[in-house]
Amino acid sequence: MRAITYQAVEEVRVQDVPEPAVQDPTDVVIRVTLAAICGSDLHLYHGRIPGLVPGYVLGHEYVGVVQEVGPQVRTLVPGDRVTGAFNPACGACGPCRRGQYNLCPNGGVLGYGLAFGNLGGTQAEYARIPFADTTLRKVPDHVTDEQAIFTGDVLTTAYGAVKNSGLVPGETVAVIGAGPVGLMAVQSARVRGAGRVIAVDLIPERLELAERLGAVPINAAAANPVSRVLSLTGGDGADVVVEAVGGTKTILMAFDLVRPGGRVMAVGITSEETLEYPLMASLSKDVTFRIGVANVVRDIDETLSLVAAGRIDPTAVVSHRLPLAEVPDGYRLFAERKILKALVVPD
Amino acid sequence: MRAITYQAVEEVRVQDVPEPAVQDPTDVVIRVTLAAICGSDLHLYHGRIPGLVPGYVLGHEYVGVVQEVGPQVRTLVPGDRVTGAFNPACGACGPCRRGQYNLCPNGGVLGYGLAFGNLGGTQAEYARIPFADTTLRKVPDHVTDEQAIFTGDVLTTAYGAVKNSGLVPGETVAVIGAGPVGLMAVQSARVRGAGRVIAVDLIPERLELAERLGAVPINAAAANPVSRVLSLTGGDGADVVVEAVGGTKTILMAFDLVRPGGRVMAVGITSEETLEYPLMASLSKDVTFRIGVANVVRDIDETLSLVAAGRIDPTAVVSHRLPLAEVPDGYRLFAERKILKALVVPD
Amino acid sequence: MRAITYQAVEEVRVQDVPEPAVQDPTDVVIRVTLAAICGSDLHLYHGRIPGLVPGYVLGHEYVGVVQEVGPQVRTLVPGDRVTGAFNPACGACGPCRRGQYNLCPNGGVLGYGLAFGNLGGTQAEYARIPFADTTLRKVPDHVTDEQAIFTGDVLTTAYGAVKNSGLVPGETVAVIGAGPVGLMAVQSARVRGAGRVIAVDLIPERLELAERLGAVPINAAAANPVSRVLSLTGGDGADVVVEAVGGTKTILMAFDLVRPGGRVMAVGITSEETLEYPLMASLSKDVTFRIGVANVVRDIDETLSLVAAGRIDPTAVVSHRLPLAEVPDGYRLFAERKILKALVVPD
Amino acid sequence: MRAITYQAVEEVRVQDVPEPAVQDPTDVVIRVTLAAICGSDLHLYHGRIPGLVPGYVLGHEYVGVVQEVGPQVRTLVPGDRVTGAFNPACGACGPCRRGQYNLCPNGGVLGYGLAFGNLGGTQAEYARIPFADTTLRKVPDHVTDEQAIFTGDVLTTAYGAVKNSGLVPGETVAVIGAGPVGLMAVQSARVRGAGRVIAVDLIPERLELAERLGAVPINAAAANPVSRVLSLTGGDGADVVVEAVGGTKTILMAFDLVRPGGRVMAVGITSEETLEYPLMASLSKDVTFRIGVANVVRDIDETLSLVAAGRIDPTAVVSHRLPLAEVPDGYRLFAERKILKALVVPD
Repeated sequence: MRAITYQAVEEVRVQDVPEPAVQDPTDVVIRVTLAAICGSDLHLYHGRIPGLVPGYVLGHEYVGVVQEVGPQVRTLVPGDRVTGAFNPACGACGPCRRGQYNLCPNGGVLGYGLAFGNLGGTQAEYARIPFADTTLRKVPDHVTDEQAIFTGDVLTTAYGAVKNSGLVPGETVAVIGAGPVGLMAVQSARVRGAGRVIAVDLIPERLELAERLGAVPINAAAANPVSRVLSLTGGDGADVVVEAVGGTKTILMAFDLVRPGGRVMAVGITSEETLEYPLMASLSKDVTFRIGVANVVRDIDETLSLVAAGRIDPTAVVSHRLPLAEVPDGYRLFAERKILKALVVPD
Repeated sequence: MRAITYQAVEEVRVQDVPEPAVQDPTDVVIRVTLAAICGSDLHLYHGRIPGLVPGYVLGHEYVGVVQEVGPQVRTLVPGDRVTGAFNPACGACGPCRRGQYNLCPNGGVLGYGLAFGNLGGTQAEYARIPFADTTLRKVPDHVTDEQAIFTGDVLTTAYGAVKNSGLVPGETVAVIGAGPVGLMAVQSARVRGAGRVIAVDLIPERLELAERLGAVPINAAAANPVSRVLSLTGGDGADVVVEAVGGTKTILMAFDLVRPGGRVMAVGITSEETLEYPLMASLSKDVTFRIGVANVVRDIDETLSLVAAGRIDPTAVVSHRLPLAEVPDGYRLFAERKILKALVVPD
Repeated sequence: MRAITYQAVEEVRVQDVPEPAVQDPTDVVIRVTLAAICGSDLHLYHGRIPGLVPGYVLGHEYVGVVQEVGPQVRTLVPGDRVTGAFNPACGACGPCRRGQYNLCPNGGVLGYGLAFGNLGGTQAEYARIPFADTTLRKVPDHVTDEQAIFTGDVLTTAYGAVKNSGLVPGETVAVIGAGPVGLMAVQSARVRGAGRVIAVDLIPERLELAERLGAVPINAAAANPVSRVLSLTGGDGADVVVEAVGGTKTILMAFDLVRPGGRVMAVGITSEETLEYPLMASLSKDVTFRIGVANVVRDIDETLSLVAAGRIDPTAVVSHRLPLAEVPDGYRLFAERKILKALVVPD
Repeated sequence: MRAITYQAVEEVRVQDVPEPAVQDPTDVVIRVTLAAICGSDLHLYHGRIPGLVPGYVLGHEYVGVVQEVGPQVRTLVPGDRVTGAFNPACGACGPCRRGQYNLCPNGGVLGYGLAFGNLGGTQAEYARIPFADTTLRKVPDHVTDEQAIFTGDVLTTAYGAVKNSGLVPGETVAVIGAGPVGLMAVQSARVRGAGRVIAVDLIPERLELAERLGAVPINAAAANPVSRVLSLTGGDGADVVVEAVGGTKTILMAFDLVRPGGRVMAVGITSEETLEYPLMASLSKDVTFRIGVANVVRDIDETLSLVAAGRIDPTAVVSHRLPLAEVPDGYRLFAERKILKALVVPD
């Protein structure tokens, strides 16, 4: 089959590779009908993630049709249209039993290399999905592939951060970064009852989109986000800040934007080892901080329901639809921030 | 001053009565700028509530301007524009300390007669509000009187029911009764993340309004609500049912509409002593049932924030605006269900 | 194998029946090392449950050793010592996905007849447990069979009721009925932080045991429980009442014992169709009521942890240990309330 | 009156100072019947807190009898025996309205100098308590002064950390530091349902006390706490870690002790500006971190109920009872860690 494979730093290509097959009895193989390029794929592209070898298939977002099921798969049959978590979970270990599927030691991340379970990717014609009963969900008939694909990663990542924040309806949420995850955070905050949502970014187009989705935009290139947020909140600061960039600078900004007693939720995938945490300031401000990889399996039923009911429209962020042949170019343009969100149509 | 007073069963009138004054040190007297007629006022009108005497001032919804403050009032000064709970709470007793302001033994209900604290009403030029620090809230500048008045009763009653239900975003909420409280429940369910909201009523105009506010309407005169709700939910039933009528028949309907494991929240003010509770059916369905008077003081900050942020527009239900002189007619028309919601403009 | 079977109303016997085998791929067959007679078995014994046929194997509490596993069982192997829920759940349907395993339409109740899934019972040398991955748990080494067996029903039933009540540490819990479930409710309330626990019963021995487990005993034969509870709580009533008897009279007593804003949790298995629900009184008291079958799969990890850590000792209620041959007599003595809790040792 | 006053770094003395009087209408003056020296007083003693002047009265723990009440005090009268929060809260501002009394901008900390509201201290014969209705609680008759005093700071600080952690009953809690706050954390974790509690310290006597209170002791001088905790938890780590020391080294240890998905709650009062936060490790572990000053007003009713019901005995940590004359020596011995907890008896 044809697939997008890693070759070297900043080099990916379309390559013919063997089709995946069921290996473990809980596997499913899907024919991929839609994939996507994720912001976190850029870490792979730039060679910042160890454990990539030439020829490795990339991609972890997907919608597809079940092709083959392992003998222990109970809930799916060939022909089912499915989407699922970018991070499969076994459903049977301690963390899974207590609902922390993102911490499953038996899972990993699809298409993210040897350090993350050595699972194949989804930017391909076919993909093997382990632990299918836990990882996959059938897509309701009237939900399109383009809507469904976001529930497997970007939307549910953002949604989970808002959920973990313990948002009280009526509160103000500031989102740092109006890329795909940030824009999903804007929508998630709205649907969970935020009063005002504020989006901070540097790119006017992204801020316009954030505004259309219901946020008050702040262009950090033109205004000081801290003084703007304080002024918008009567001097208090935001109740919740979602950091959707992934840098320590933006995380530290989050501590400045948040009100006393507030919560900082970092969902950007950082590549820095440590953060100069404002300990004394947090002591008096009583701030809660959490950074972690999304618990998609826990939350995907909620996001899928909300999409099915028309409460969230994740497709608002789609800027490009690429056949496999154009995906290598897509990676480059995405790295140059000329693409907001590219879907991949394996055809 | 002029006020609407009870005279006899189904007879209210505009009458000159003495202006209220500060009696207790925690009192405030407000000049009423907006009042309203509430569905629960009809119980008084029809003589179903004991403890009414001729000349008693009615009304418990209000926005006004602080005129006089008692010596123990700490948060308000003359000139403040305020709204507040229909059921004042002392803020200092056991139930208030644990946040159950609706159970304060020192409060009562404004304009609801001797059995409810013998507090004067708000369908008048002036009103005395006890326990002002706990009961009242300043209205933000850009929130209108017509928006604010709903946070003191109708909106917050509905909102509290949805909140008490433990709604999980994405769930389906069925609302029985599309009167003012029911329509606020539709909006509250939406803002707290409901996937689908279903409204059941008999009056086409109310159902149209429910639909405009985001609900799927079911006319119980034309279709069986139980089979319709089951069909809309794939045979499961609604996750949450809000009963906003107040009869045992509609409460029993709620038990038929709710799915196994669901929750029935009754906010209609019933006048019946007992209910033939479906015990065995609930045992196997694991249904939670709650009926109670709204905890407005607990929730008014949330609803006021949501109105201020434009997330809820309670004025959608306003059908009439009446000067005091027309209020007696208004009671009659409201009792005949020819009015959806009448505001009262004291001068 | 030898097993306890139903023969006719109030007649059970030891009978030779065929050994169960794996039928479905998610089944496990266990060699039963410990079973028990449950209060709810008396409904079967007295012929109050439809769907029993002569020769049907009774019993739904169990500890055992895995003997045979179906091909889709992922978490267990022969030799594992296990206990599990009396009500197996498939783990894959809608209710299971949202954590309401007690409402699984594919499960049932072990040993409870044709109306409850026609599953065989555990008062036998061997038993078939469906949906083993979801239903069963390995028993930690230092937890005895006698401790573990309670986590599959009686303890977790009581514990779940306390959990569902939303108990705030420091609150007062009244338990009506000091049988096995009631005594587990006493312990569960304590471990979840109840300030004072009150136990109401008629039998002095049960009340003595309740007192030893930390409760204030009230003998309803000697004192009016309502006035006693009110006096113990400064006139307020209990924050939470757990009804562990199963009659409408005791449920109505619960409404009298509970404080305004309190919660009534009924876990006794009722056999009455309806309850004359105190609607008007609940409206002003704002009481929450819930009756339902226990969600053991949801809570068994918590109770097993608490037993393993020595925080709860369920064996305090064990009064008899019977070999199979004595179980028919045991049913009779239990029905006469001469037994508090009888364990069954199959060989 | 006589009081303990700050003089210079590491110099306090008994001094005659003017008796406090009611200044603001919400004030109460109490005759102090019991005070204490707190670990956080050592920061003052060592001169690490700016804003202390010679002659300033120290102390923020207290039980007393109401002597004089301001005209806006509604819930207290002279003669009431009271205890209360070390950090008074106005009860009327935004943070107080949403229950975050520890963030009240109008409060401060009693006896903690000019930077914390310039409020007088309680190591004195009399003390002025601002915002008395919000800050104080009547002590139930059968609760002793020595029990009650802990609810105003040390116990409730620890209890709040356990509560904020979202502890699920059955989970394992590790407490770093077995001083007074740590030992209260051990008891709080137990009462809120912890399965196992582990205490880490260097001082054998403190560890013995921790063990008596139900903890598994780890002497960090004799064993590696990380490997011990991992081994006690089957390699997982603790679900919750309460850091009760106040140093960055112990906070970093907490990150090593906590399991993936766990929560680190820091309650030790730190004097360091920043922490080298393990960002990347936390990303993959999904750890939640919170540091903050205790919300005593929010939680004191719970802790007082638990003490009244005999569920927590905070007096277990009392090692010394000092008249005012011996308090200067007490500070010295406490700084040398020769005192675990000293109460102060003003006369």
